[in-house]
Amino acid sequence: MAQTENCGPDLIPDAQAELLRLRDSIDNIDAALIYMLAERFKCTKQVGALKATHQMPPSDPRREAVQIERLRTLARGAHLDPDFAEKFLAFVIKEVIHHHETLQRPGAK
Amino acid sequence: MAQTENCGPDLIPDAQAELLRLRDSIDNIDAALIYMLAERFKCTKQVGALKATHQMPPSDPRREAVQIERLRTLARGAHLDPDFAEKFLAFVIKEVIHHHETLQRPGAK
Repeated sequence: MAQTENCGPDLIPDAQAELLRLRDSIDNIDAALIYMLAERFKCTKQVGALKATHQMPPSDPRREAVQIERLRTLARGAHLDPDFAEKFLAFVIKEVIHHHETLQRPGAK
Repeated sequence: MAQTENCGPDLIPDAQAELLRLRDSIDNIDAALIYMLAERFKCTKQVGALKATHQMPPSDPRREAVQIERLRTLARGAHLDPDFAEKFLAFVIKEVIHHHETLQRPGAK
């Protein structure tokens, strides 16, 4: 049987090429996501500093409820599972609140 | 002391305006993230279909190790916590594998 170097045993070369093409797009999208997340944390760090200065609570349930509904709507329009969009926002906000709490600890600046 | 309608009790109008400005940027970034995630899942759904057709395992630990290192490096360059970038990738991949497993269940197409 002919050997197909660089391919899985059951993967024909066309399928292998298609997999590589898709993974290349996924890598590009992941880079974009990382850069957008970096930018988002730059903003939330400023929010955290503002909240620490003005002794506001790290979390804001009313704001979060609005964000959740908005992202669920955007997700539906983009054919993304709205439940996943909500879980994603919760995942990011959890990290943000952790940052805000760290900023508000005595001795933090 | 002058009252500041629409502001928290300890939040001066300038700080309130700054908070709104930052939240507006966060909302824009979140929309971009949702659209990029939707695009990413379009790619991974195609990967899932390819894997199901060729009976490949839903997860690929070697590929994931490369992705993790790459995203950690990108995160460092963007001043994003590399640990957060890794957790983010794990969060997304968990959802992707769940999709792939669903596709490979008998009766799934």
